[in-house]
Amino acid sequence: MGSRFAFPVRVYYEDTDAAGVVYYANYLRYLERARTEWLAALGHPLAPLEREHGVVFVVRRAEIDFRRPARLGDALDVGLVVESLSRASLVARQDVRRGAEVLVDARVELACVDAAHWKPTRIPIPLPGAQAHAP
Amino acid sequence: MGSRFAFPVRVYYEDTDAAGVVYYANYLRYLERARTEWLAALGHPLAPLEREHGVVFVVRRAEIDFRRPARLGDALDVGLVVESLSRASLVARQDVRRGAEVLVDARVELACVDAAHWKPTRIPIPLPGAQAHAP
Amino acid sequence: MGSRFAFPVRVYYEDTDAAGVVYYANYLRYLERARTEWLAALGHPLAPLEREHGVVFVVRRAEIDFRRPARLGDALDVGLVVESLSRASLVARQDVRRGAEVLVDARVELACVDAAHWKPTRIPIPLPGAQAHAP
Amino acid sequence: MGSRFAFPVRVYYEDTDAAGVVYYANYLRYLERARTEWLAALGHPLAPLEREHGVVFVVRRAEIDFRRPARLGDALDVGLVVESLSRASLVARQDVRRGAEVLVDARVELACVDAAHWKPTRIPIPLPGAQAHAP
Repeated sequence: MGSRFAFPVRVYYEDTDAAGVVYYANYLRYLERARTEWLAALGHPLAPLEREHGVVFVVRRAEIDFRRPARLGDALDVGLVVESLSRASLVARQDVRRGAEVLVDARVELACVDAAHWKPTRIPIPLPGAQAHAP
Repeated sequence: MGSRFAFPVRVYYEDTDAAGVVYYANYLRYLERARTEWLAALGHPLAPLEREHGVVFVVRRAEIDFRRPARLGDALDVGLVVESLSRASLVARQDVRRGAEVLVDARVELACVDAAHWKPTRIPIPLPGAQAHAP
Repeated sequence: MGSRFAFPVRVYYEDTDAAGVVYYANYLRYLERARTEWLAALGHPLAPLEREHGVVFVVRRAEIDFRRPARLGDALDVGLVVESLSRASLVARQDVRRGAEVLVDARVELACVDAAHWKPTRIPIPLPGAQAHAP
Repeated sequence: MGSRFAFPVRVYYEDTDAAGVVYYANYLRYLERARTEWLAALGHPLAPLEREHGVVFVVRRAEIDFRRPARLGDALDVGLVVESLSRASLVARQDVRRGAEVLVDARVELACVDAAHWKPTRIPIPLPGAQAHAP
């Protein structure tokens, strides 16, 4: 599946809720930050993807296990491994860790769509994972 | 499974992103609003649940299909049906609709935990769905 | 200054933070919801404003006093009074109340800009407050 | 006033809205991240401040000028300078820059309160700015 891309995230008040932990929807923000930084690290920042290639990656399906809560001030590490890659879509395995502890585990299905009509379209950039799945 | 509880939501700028649609994590906020209003409609607003019963409902797992995007100004309807109910947990089937269109479909597993130690604990209030599953 | 437009808001977990209160930035969301509903009540929902008139209202300046915290489950009332209105801008006095208590007080300066170039442009719809300021 | 503390922020989809720019309330999140990192850089991360000293910094008043919009993918720099410091409160001058451009300018009044009763209390840690204002 290739190596795990990792991106650090710090937990601020904005991320937490009155139960004293990170609000569950906010882990999806963290997951998206890691996906964005992964693309940027590959040389494909988001804004040009939309401006020059006219495409947007959209989440089609997400499965998320919330194992343990993150708390104010935690230094987290958000990971991404490409599970599979096809012409117009991508499955990412993602997790949120605090040191060695896995707090959140996720499987995220993404589709590449054209920014104008929101229709599935070919991924216009080379992404790693493709080669790994070649026979 | 019992009848569908429905709660209306309006899409504001705060909910949308630069792709012109509701940001994917924000549907999880909508889902939680409907769960909160469902509990409130049953006579159990959140704050007393925590204060008097010392419990919090936490999401253990969520599976979400993002079928079509919601947009600025949309009047949405967020639904909840109890799929199953046990001593200390609950599975909710939820969706987000715009009129007859289903935009988002979700299955959400919730656990009842004590607010102090975050350990699974018995749901301290009667919830519908229990009877439906009695033999 | 005309009468106070009021819009109800419920505090959910998503709005709160680990200090047990509504996160300070989230009051600005509440203020915007009330502005949006005020425009809608005047017959001008946001999406057509942008689509048909090609304009967006943007906040140029905000002054906000955070007097008392709102908490999980609170039923709030968000208000708006037009303080002044000119050709291409608007000043709104807004507040967030819990019953008779004023929790937050704000003065918000808005400009009407064209959606394409983000330049100040004439407000394309009649707004109350205009007449009140006519000599 | 002392030197400007700076903290980098990247704009993600989560920060933007359907007008294609950073949603106005989200600049207040950026301002708070910089305040938190400033305290951490001084040796005072937030969580111990609350746990060991029993205090929270709360925003009493904010004045914010939104000069130019930030957009998806922007690399921003959020600054903080202590304008004044007293026994139980603090005024911070903050801004959000993109390169040399100032996008947002803010003046934020903070109070130190005890976490239990939310009453003003002495700032329990040494903060720079105090000495600067001693005669």
